[in-house]
Amino acid sequence: MTQSDTSAQNLSPTERTTIRRGAKRARSERAELHALLDDALICHLGVQVEGAPRVLPTAFARCGEILYLHGSTGARSLREAVVGQEVCVTVTEVDGIVYGRATMHHSMNYRCAVIYGRPRLVDTAEERWAALRALTDHLSPGSWDYARRPNRKELAKTSVVALPLDEASVKSRSGAPGDDEEDIEADVAWAGVLPTRRVWDAPVTSPDLRSDIPIPDHVTTRGKTRP
Amino acid sequence: MTQSDTSAQNLSPTERTTIRRGAKRARSERAELHALLDDALICHLGVQVEGAPRVLPTAFARCGEILYLHGSTGARSLREAVVGQEVCVTVTEVDGIVYGRATMHHSMNYRCAVIYGRPRLVDTAEERWAALRALTDHLSPGSWDYARRPNRKELAKTSVVALPLDEASVKSRSGAPGDDEEDIEADVAWAGVLPTRRVWDAPVTSPDLRSDIPIPDHVTTRGKTRP
Repeated sequence: MTQSDTSAQNLSPTERTTIRRGAKRARSERAELHALLDDALICHLGVQVEGAPRVLPTAFARCGEILYLHGSTGARSLREAVVGQEVCVTVTEVDGIVYGRATMHHSMNYRCAVIYGRPRLVDTAEERWAALRALTDHLSPGSWDYARRPNRKELAKTSVVALPLDEASVKSRSGAPGDDEEDIEADVAWAGVLPTRRVWDAPVTSPDLRSDIPIPDHVTTRGKTRP
Repeated sequence: MTQSDTSAQNLSPTERTTIRRGAKRARSERAELHALLDDALICHLGVQVEGAPRVLPTAFARCGEILYLHGSTGARSLREAVVGQEVCVTVTEVDGIVYGRATMHHSMNYRCAVIYGRPRLVDTAEERWAALRALTDHLSPGSWDYARRPNRKELAKTSVVALPLDEASVKSRSGAPGDDEEDIEADVAWAGVLPTRRVWDAPVTSPDLRSDIPIPDHVTTRGKTRP
């Protein structure tokens, strides 16, 4: 367990940063960005509403270098606050609690992606369909081929926006605590990490299921993997 | 499993709402707010920096009706963007994936708290100490009494801000999918929920521990409970 901290001691704000294409470090960061986005279930979308920040959790999907978000066409405030406006999308996974020898060297192991940009409304039928498929694949892999796909009425009620991953940064911390040398020398307290992760429990069948339809493989299989 | 959805179909933005004190519903919402804040490991803090939203994950703690956040005194941008400014703090826990009979009725079960306000800098030694203790207790229950407490140098390097829970809302979804009646009647697909939760794995001792100090109870015990 080697300490790796690409950030400040705690999860705390930094200057807005950009992954610059081309550089070696940028390639590895881009792989980390993609891996984290593919791993996480939700993002936190930051917008400005009447001059004040608003942060809301929402589902998302990545297709190559584009992040898709969706919402109801009825949610006017979403469209107005998102389309063409500066937004910030943040995706965070906590991987462990870091127990230092000192309380101020307690911390978290985590991965965090921050993406800035101005989303555009997805307005072609083809891209909307592809985005909705990607959103379903991300939320519930296997469901696109199993469940009823969107009909015309549902499509009309759904807005999809696209945010390019051009301006994005990844921060992470992993490994052991970074205690002060004198606390390490004093040798009076345990130090280490308590890892944490998300697990799936057994599927719960809907009580309004009319017949004895078996739980499909894509649900039971997911329940056996790490999300 | 009864469906309960205090929000739109998906995790998606809503109008800014307030828990109004006094009403019966507000009391139960306030208990939900406290329970969620006490349960979650991190929040997402939304601020405005140069006119654009920025969302960053950070540790937090609740003391009664106050939320405390902390950061390095070196992080000027944090203090300037936070103290006396309008911020939004959002805490979200995902509880399950909802598999509807239709892809558009796929959703998530979740709990989400959104808090708005203008944080003040905590400037008395007493409140700073109490806040740092609360932050340690939240991140790592038991560590305040086990690890070395903050010294003068560490205190000087740490900013603490307080955000009252006056303007806060809680949204949640639980239970079965809310499919269309005709999809339920058609009876051709399974529907239900795949629950998800956070677990702790076995503690990992720091490689630079000098002697054979045992893993303390507050770490091993936490590893046996749901976070």
